[in-house]
Amino acid sequence: MTQTLRIGIAGLGTVGIGVVKIFQDHGTSFPKKAGRDIVITAVSARDRKKDRGVCLDSYTWYDDPLAIARADTVDVVVELIGGSAGLPRELVETALQNGKHVVTANKALLAEHGFALACLAEKKNRALCYEAAVAGGIPIIKALREGFVANQISEIRGILNGTCNYILTAMRETGRSFEDILKEAQEKGYAEADPTFDIEGIDAAHKLCILNALAFGINPNFEHIGVVGISAITTDDIKAADELGYRIKLLGVARREGSRTVQRVEPCLVPISSPLGSVEGVFNAVDITGDFVGRGLLVGRGAGEGPTASAVVADLMDIARGNITPVFALPPEFLTDPEPRPHESTETSSSTAPFYVRLTVRDQPGVLASVAGVLYDSNISIGAVMQRARMPGQTVPLILTTHPACPEDLQTACRNLEGLPTVTEKPVLMRIED
Amino acid sequence: MTQTLRIGIAGLGTVGIGVVKIFQDHGTSFPKKAGRDIVITAVSARDRKKDRGVCLDSYTWYDDPLAIARADTVDVVVELIGGSAGLPRELVETALQNGKHVVTANKALLAEHGFALACLAEKKNRALCYEAAVAGGIPIIKALREGFVANQISEIRGILNGTCNYILTAMRETGRSFEDILKEAQEKGYAEADPTFDIEGIDAAHKLCILNALAFGINPNFEHIGVVGISAITTDDIKAADELGYRIKLLGVARREGSRTVQRVEPCLVPISSPLGSVEGVFNAVDITGDFVGRGLLVGRGAGEGPTASAVVADLMDIARGNITPVFALPPEFLTDPEPRPHESTETSSSTAPFYVRLTVRDQPGVLASVAGVLYDSNISIGAVMQRARMPGQTVPLILTTHPACPEDLQTACRNLEGLPTVTEKPVLMRIED
Repeated sequence: MTQTLRIGIAGLGTVGIGVVKIFQDHGTSFPKKAGRDIVITAVSARDRKKDRGVCLDSYTWYDDPLAIARADTVDVVVELIGGSAGLPRELVETALQNGKHVVTANKALLAEHGFALACLAEKKNRALCYEAAVAGGIPIIKALREGFVANQISEIRGILNGTCNYILTAMRETGRSFEDILKEAQEKGYAEADPTFDIEGIDAAHKLCILNALAFGINPNFEHIGVVGISAITTDDIKAADELGYRIKLLGVARREGSRTVQRVEPCLVPISSPLGSVEGVFNAVDITGDFVGRGLLVGRGAGEGPTASAVVADLMDIARGNITPVFALPPEFLTDPEPRPHESTETSSSTAPFYVRLTVRDQPGVLASVAGVLYDSNISIGAVMQRARMPGQTVPLILTTHPACPEDLQTACRNLEGLPTVTEKPVLMRIED
Repeated sequence: MTQTLRIGIAGLGTVGIGVVKIFQDHGTSFPKKAGRDIVITAVSARDRKKDRGVCLDSYTWYDDPLAIARADTVDVVVELIGGSAGLPRELVETALQNGKHVVTANKALLAEHGFALACLAEKKNRALCYEAAVAGGIPIIKALREGFVANQISEIRGILNGTCNYILTAMRETGRSFEDILKEAQEKGYAEADPTFDIEGIDAAHKLCILNALAFGINPNFEHIGVVGISAITTDDIKAADELGYRIKLLGVARREGSRTVQRVEPCLVPISSPLGSVEGVFNAVDITGDFVGRGLLVGRGAGEGPTASAVVADLMDIARGNITPVFALPPEFLTDPEPRPHESTETSSSTAPFYVRLTVRDQPGVLASVAGVLYDSNISIGAVMQRARMPGQTVPLILTTHPACPEDLQTACRNLEGLPTVTEKPVLMRIED
């Protein structure tokens, strides 16, 4: 049996405590699985006195997390502080500089500084692992980096944010508004006090950015992802989608289209009976298409103490077993630069797709005729139309689906629709995925 | 860059040719991913002259596959001959004895001789990889051995045989009989000329045996799995299940119940809207429950040239990267022996579950009363009842679902039902899974 692998954990929030619990519950099996001992030797967090429900007495306490990154008693630093700027980055860099392996759950850090960190890890010949950063307990990083390594990936589609999926599911199940459900989710602790990162799609975009890097060999660069959140989704949308046979999901999509890769996070309609359509509540899912393997789907809990800690410990086991793979599947010198982010007008101008359109219109005669005329002029062919009259003169939602349409044509049509006197708000557009 | 990894492929059927195609299509990217060259140097098959649609000129041809296992120009032997007895076993043993790594897609070999082969691989310090042996392109072996390694697994449930899932799906979609669909599947090449291995659940049991070994640290031993196939399923069952809100799936289930592990392959009813219920046609799926990660589901194509070859090449990449893990996640000395297979009468006597029961009864007055009486006497509480009268005096299916029942009580009841003069055939029983 080779040398003991010594772990230092910086950050003792939900995930950090989850990791401690796994070691305390299952640690005796680790030497059998890894061929060596794996032990936690050091921990660090802000408040030493806080009761965290687990015994930390056998670990050396550090008030300064950076001290863990320098400690002679630590071989692997587990960074669970979170946030991309400042301390976490300094911690990871210091750990690598000091010849330590790093395991992190920090998607923002990897999405924004992944390339520099991968170069440093490569230079120091150390592991930088992050299974916990995307889709919690789902081993999606390992699947892309190793399981599907034989394939040219053409598409990744993921439900990557559990908070959004929880809100959208609850809106459908209860018929209550976005604001209402969000407030409840905050009270229950499913959503942050400041929910912007989740509901505006930024968290999902961080994760998509990492998946995109792995799948397509592209430097992770968060700035290149088009992002639309779910805060504009109404109960009218949820109900209409349901009646049309769809669920609304915040999808992260990265797709090869010719020589370029389109990356976007946006709410989409997916068929109720499709694999992604059946992923509800806090579950996450990633649907991958490769040229040899075909389509594969991985589903599981995307967040929480147990699933995320499970992913952290899987990374630690890989390091203990000596199974170390390049950070983004390829050494950083082979990663290519991403294409610049397209402008608004062409942002969705990738392949044609059917779309869902919600217009807010004044309930008066001739509205549908004028809307249909504008769409016709832009070569948009209408699939379904749903309108429920409420009160003449009031505004009502007018919901349409289109046949596969060129996104640029649809953008043009929407600008023209917005100019109609009977259309009172900016149209809401959502792509219909199969 | 370290030394080139040299591959010898024994068996050039569908999967072998798929591996060749992946190397010819994507081989130039392998050195970037692995940090070393990976090349096919040798191939072997029965008929050298057969046109296989790919150019094999640059590989050394061996008529004798065992010569590949001894060749100085080969570092990894890919065994794609199939079958558990004789040549494939000898090939794998010879390869390991000669210090070569082995990659195989041979589930029968692993299910029946896995422990001996794992011991040999361990002794020779070589990899024995078999991602392709279970669920084709789905990286389920890697997920269990690495991704979910932090967890105590409590349950695995899998749709592990694409032929059965195709037949059951087609029976439902077309309303045609089992025999009819099987014949068509054979003509289309989806089912073997001798379909016994697939339709009687043996292939699924081989795969379950491997998953069970990985998940629970138990020596693979095929003899310990209870197996029921799908050949007794009728269109009446399919229709009734559909009306009750279920799909019939051939499930491999391995479940921790107290200190023992229950392993069985049998047709079960699963809810239409459940993750497993939505897995149709040739797709495979594995649903895993671990104590920290919760439930995870992996879905993908379970067979065919591309998916299976994708899994073989993933194993080759692991070996090239130096990422070698114990064959069954633990070194063989830590694997425990399986419990002996329970007798028929207690085979399903694990936890209580709701059941589906199809009786074939004479369509005459008093039948339901006598059936209900027998069930009542065995403490079986009836959920739903479905009977469509056809012709008085003729036999008709009488379909019941039970509330959660003790399987032993149900077995007793079925023996008593079989004794009724109005029941003309052995009752068909299927567990209802959630």
